[in-house]
Amino acid sequence: MTSKRAIQDFYPENLAHCYGCGAHNPQGLQLKTYWAEDEADTTITCFMPKPYHTAIPGFVYGGLIASLIDCHGTGTAALAAYRAEGREPGSDPPLRFVTAHLAVDFLKPTPLGPRLTLRGKVTEIKGRKVVVAVSVWVDAQMTAQGEVVAVRMPENFGF
Amino acid sequence: MTSKRAIQDFYPENLAHCYGCGAHNPQGLQLKTYWAEDEADTTITCFMPKPYHTAIPGFVYGGLIASLIDCHGTGTAALAAYRAEGREPGSDPPLRFVTAHLAVDFLKPTPLGPRLTLRGKVTEIKGRKVVVAVSVWVDAQMTAQGEVVAVRMPENFGF
Repeated sequence: MTSKRAIQDFYPENLAHCYGCGAHNPQGLQLKTYWAEDEADTTITCFMPKPYHTAIPGFVYGGLIASLIDCHGTGTAALAAYRAEGREPGSDPPLRFVTAHLAVDFLKPTPLGPRLTLRGKVTEIKGRKVVVAVSVWVDAQMTAQGEVVAVRMPENFGF
Repeated sequence: MTSKRAIQDFYPENLAHCYGCGAHNPQGLQLKTYWAEDEADTTITCFMPKPYHTAIPGFVYGGLIASLIDCHGTGTAALAAYRAEGREPGSDPPLRFVTAHLAVDFLKPTPLGPRLTLRGKVTEIKGRKVVVAVSVWVDAQMTAQGEVVAVRMPENFGF
């Protein structure tokens, strides 16, 4: 069970083109990150890999797993930052995070076919930085875990 | 300048479907990893992102960068393992690596448009494990760097 709207639905229109989670990227993965309704302080997303998202035949491509961890991490960072400020996504100013550091441990091969579930938990939130631990699950089996160091996007990003 | 054939061209037929670098994945990225001809002990690959490989508009998606680092890392591991055994890719037994750990530091936004160049250098090779440092470049600017801990794929992978 999840809350009704994903954090990505609140990303500003001009910042919603991410290949991993942008609503305005039709070729992208369109990941959606929610607060889990039945797990405290936990975010959740689900993703169904396509047959071509393969590594070794039968198993999910590690770069896809890294991508999902990345976007779920920055989405979780935004959700947590709104909560820390005591306000709802959609209120101003918008909070949008980018990744400074991404790490992934591939614990075992992830079978290609079933739906993947990712869970996020904030391990640090300080100033503009939010650190998120993300785990990747197939049913009750954790197949990968990662860490995302997310930083609130500066106004002058890229310039 | 690069050597003539990529390591991926020597991956066994039944292990050449990787979304990132498999010759038999038409929807995939088809990355190719070579020994650089003019840089000692360095591997190289180039990749031209598609317009939809965007993060924030104008910049390359971090998950794509992580994917390229991952596949260039495992490709570099295979090249280095053949060299360490004093034999050429294509000789038996084939050497194929999978990723145990991937880490990426996003140093600055990577502009979307120009061709990306990735360089790999082995920092450790011991038994079945090869550690590879990978850097991502746009012209003379390094925009990201990563580390791949690659492990020679066991015969019973996934089982």
